[in-house]
Amino acid sequence: MKLKRWLPCLDWAASYDKATAGKDGLAAVIVTLMLIPQSLAYAMLAGLPPITGLYASIAPLFLYAIFGSSRTLAVGPVAVVSLMTAAALGPIFAAESAEYLGAAMLLAALSGVILLLMAIFRLGFLANFLSHPVISGFISASGLLIALSQLKHILGVQAQGQTVLELLPSLVAQLPSVHTPTLMIGGLCLVFLQLVRTRLKGLLLGLGCSKGWADALTKTGPVLTIIVSVMAVTLGDLASAGVQVVGEIPEGLPLLRLPTMDLQLAIELLPAALLISLVGFVESVSVAQTLAAKRRERIDPDQELVGLGTANIAAAVSGGFPVTGGFARSIVNFDAGAKTPMAGVLTAVGIALTALFFTPLFHNLPHAVLAATIIVAVLSLVDLQSLKRTWRFSKQDFIAQAATMIGVLFMGVEIGIIMGVSLSLLLFLWRTSRPHSAVVGQLPGSEHFRNIERFAVIQSDSVVSLRVDESLYFPNARYLEERIIELMVEYPQCQHLVLMCSGVNLIDASALDSLEAIAERLKAADVQLHLSEVKGPVMDQLHRSEFLQHFGGQVFVSQYAAMQALDQSSVAQAARAVHA
Amino acid sequence: MKLKRWLPCLDWAASYDKATAGKDGLAAVIVTLMLIPQSLAYAMLAGLPPITGLYASIAPLFLYAIFGSSRTLAVGPVAVVSLMTAAALGPIFAAESAEYLGAAMLLAALSGVILLLMAIFRLGFLANFLSHPVISGFISASGLLIALSQLKHILGVQAQGQTVLELLPSLVAQLPSVHTPTLMIGGLCLVFLQLVRTRLKGLLLGLGCSKGWADALTKTGPVLTIIVSVMAVTLGDLASAGVQVVGEIPEGLPLLRLPTMDLQLAIELLPAALLISLVGFVESVSVAQTLAAKRRERIDPDQELVGLGTANIAAAVSGGFPVTGGFARSIVNFDAGAKTPMAGVLTAVGIALTALFFTPLFHNLPHAVLAATIIVAVLSLVDLQSLKRTWRFSKQDFIAQAATMIGVLFMGVEIGIIMGVSLSLLLFLWRTSRPHSAVVGQLPGSEHFRNIERFAVIQSDSVVSLRVDESLYFPNARYLEERIIELMVEYPQCQHLVLMCSGVNLIDASALDSLEAIAERLKAADVQLHLSEVKGPVMDQLHRSEFLQHFGGQVFVSQYAAMQALDQSSVAQAARAVHA
Repeated sequence: MKLKRWLPCLDWAASYDKATAGKDGLAAVIVTLMLIPQSLAYAMLAGLPPITGLYASIAPLFLYAIFGSSRTLAVGPVAVVSLMTAAALGPIFAAESAEYLGAAMLLAALSGVILLLMAIFRLGFLANFLSHPVISGFISASGLLIALSQLKHILGVQAQGQTVLELLPSLVAQLPSVHTPTLMIGGLCLVFLQLVRTRLKGLLLGLGCSKGWADALTKTGPVLTIIVSVMAVTLGDLASAGVQVVGEIPEGLPLLRLPTMDLQLAIELLPAALLISLVGFVESVSVAQTLAAKRRERIDPDQELVGLGTANIAAAVSGGFPVTGGFARSIVNFDAGAKTPMAGVLTAVGIALTALFFTPLFHNLPHAVLAATIIVAVLSLVDLQSLKRTWRFSKQDFIAQAATMIGVLFMGVEIGIIMGVSLSLLLFLWRTSRPHSAVVGQLPGSEHFRNIERFAVIQSDSVVSLRVDESLYFPNARYLEERIIELMVEYPQCQHLVLMCSGVNLIDASALDSLEAIAERLKAADVQLHLSEVKGPVMDQLHRSEFLQHFGGQVFVSQYAAMQALDQSSVAQAARAVHA
Repeated sequence: MKLKRWLPCLDWAASYDKATAGKDGLAAVIVTLMLIPQSLAYAMLAGLPPITGLYASIAPLFLYAIFGSSRTLAVGPVAVVSLMTAAALGPIFAAESAEYLGAAMLLAALSGVILLLMAIFRLGFLANFLSHPVISGFISASGLLIALSQLKHILGVQAQGQTVLELLPSLVAQLPSVHTPTLMIGGLCLVFLQLVRTRLKGLLLGLGCSKGWADALTKTGPVLTIIVSVMAVTLGDLASAGVQVVGEIPEGLPLLRLPTMDLQLAIELLPAALLISLVGFVESVSVAQTLAAKRRERIDPDQELVGLGTANIAAAVSGGFPVTGGFARSIVNFDAGAKTPMAGVLTAVGIALTALFFTPLFHNLPHAVLAATIIVAVLSLVDLQSLKRTWRFSKQDFIAQAATMIGVLFMGVEIGIIMGVSLSLLLFLWRTSRPHSAVVGQLPGSEHFRNIERFAVIQSDSVVSLRVDESLYFPNARYLEERIIELMVEYPQCQHLVLMCSGVNLIDASALDSLEAIAERLKAADVQLHLSEVKGPVMDQLHRSEFLQHFGGQVFVSQYAAMQALDQSSVAQAARAVHA
């Protein structure tokens, strides 16, 4: 039982049969065909030799199949994490150098260790601090940034930089030296791939093709592009004409070897590794949860940390770079009918066979084609509409989202994400420091009390009820003091003030001091403070102080009970009773 | 009217009369006698020539009298701010040098500008982010640190350092070279001042002395100590024997001159200036509010920013250093009967006369006596008991308080306060990320719903009600999803889930996505999600999204209304009705 908890594969391996194997096998073939160009392309995006993309798609898939809890997640190099790898290493080492590769492996190792530590200390909740608007802003801006960074391959020029501010001038300066044959190939691929993605399925369906076939044919677009472009380059000898191609790729499986072991470098890369781990984990868990929900399966976020952690360590010791669960490929895997992580194992076998026997086929594959594959893939992640939706729903979320985007585009991926998270938290703190509060009255015919400004309610002359819609803690402690001073000016006949605490989820030491000051001041003005609807945990806490003994008022279980007790006893009520 | 808002002095100056002047005059004499030794001592603590303490107690008092809103606050050099000044400048310049003084004046100027900017942009609320436990920890630890830093003057040795870790070894290393005459003077003063503070009043009252006289005599302790010690040093020629004395003090008023104008230095000092401004503002406003409440006066925190800001700028251009409202002297001022800020003006005149004519009297005043004055004053601020109270009330507040103390003592005042504030905020965020929630049922005989684990309540078979005691925002968005999955396992017959939102003060975009996912999942399990007691501002926000149109449930004004509607319509209720 205990072992099963740590090895989710025992769950499905026990009942694995031929029928499932058939389904997994078919899915593996489709994912392999999709993963080969993606792996080569994302390695290029990460600043690494293309073969490392294949390496990063072998061992990690085995490990994830053993330790991961999702049945259908497809692990490997993904766009955003590759971009973050390039952003971390690009400024330190020359692209495609041995040092760069060693550092990329170290980054994967660090990321793996961080994920495993998060699993051991149950820190998966840290991923929750990346809010949805921040993630959405991060993905969109990364998509734009990646597309921009790949333009140089389409144009056949050199360009450097990690941000829009660096990339754009660098590209513009190179415009005069655009390499026409490269641009032709790249441009054609871009247009073709975009048409395949957006139009082909509809066209095929319109021609009477079945949905399954239409889906399958649409997926072959990138493979077809690669075959045609390799043939064109080979036949036209375009490589000699200056079209940049992948070139010689060493055949064979990756050798097991350790990443660069350099403590200084490890410390330098730690922040990047931390962000890569968090972003990768969030992306992966989101996909895994979405897919699991469709088939009423469950995933265990803590186990996902183990799966992704071991996958990254596998990448680190087999010549790879940071990996995580990819969105597009997982959906393809799921749609193609994968039932268990065995599909991932079979995909790894497919990639391994490719690395062993088929790498010469990629010699004449142009960089421009890989770049076109990346651009079309990442532009589909860009969702500028969501900015509008967020703006409408919450200005604060919008600020966090926009800041993340601006940060990523103009200051770099790491700064962008840190800005987004910090702003989200600061805006929340700022908001709780100026809480909403409402004077409440009784809804006629009920025991319920609501805001006098929103509902037609009954108010007492002598009892004022204030509902504070926030936990009382230090940033807003003084606010309550001021609000109550104003209230006493507004209601001069007030004899009892009831603080309705249904929205108060916490009272800290500063707020307790404030409450004591408020009770004192009210007493001096002949007004008695009471509390109502204090929640259990808050009540427990008040019992640990001396406030309840000293403040002189009562704590009522409900606002209605408070009103019944206090409005009865007041002089005003007595007077009304006499008149009635 | 508008002018009066910015010049609170117009308020009292209009009706100023002889009687008030008499009371203010008496208070001014007493405060002047108290302020002279304190000013000299705090200048020494700040690492400045003693005369600058007098300078810092002249012009700032005039300015505060014009712009400040408190009637009785006494402004000038205070212990904690002097310590912070020393901590900021000590590592950069040699104590008592001209550069040190120029930088101290710059620090006062920066602090004044920051306070005025805070007034203009209404940023006074920033001071609320210093929670009470952090302030209390900061003051106690500063008191201990100041006392330790002054021990060298009592022992007549040299010692350096900004933290306990630096000061203590430095002092211990110097123990063999203790200067006996200095130690005799310092030790006697310490014992005498401490006895005066703790015992004299009781003794005098026991001897039949009136309370007023007992108070007044107790206050004369420090002045008496100074007179006796100056006479002893002069008569015994102890200065030649190696007892460190104040020495030559230039007579006359401070010349108006600008602080060091060095942009580089200003940027370097900015963080320190910011903290000095915040701490000074908090200390000052707390005292002012306490005193104002006693006489039913009001102070305006934003106007206090103007008062303290102009006071600091006055200090900056008249050879002083950062000042703020002092706790002890304000209480003395209040108790001595001061009615208006004119008492402050008269105190300034008294100090000015001292600077003009009486400085030669302080030539033979030993440093040890000033140090004893400081130590007795600051040790009274140390409140280690409060750690125990905080521990009992809230572990999180305790952590913040303890961290502040440890930070101040061992890492320096600035790091300590930053650690305390950051920890307070992080602990709050951590707490809100794992919210309390409770399944609720109806209190018999009422329309009120409470936690089923704390109250004997009535539950429905088919309707489960969950109260979430926290705003729903990104760090806890996923938590709710998991809680509800657990709940559905626990209550398999559940047909309606009502989320009681009385404790939900905010729903952000991430939580909205979670709510949508929850509604979807519940629908798939044939459970309908509903909301109840949603507050106005949260409702407004939900209306700006499409959630309310899509989630399929209802929003009930109260939990009772939800129960009435849903429990009626459920099959279980119908079955029960048939059986009944």
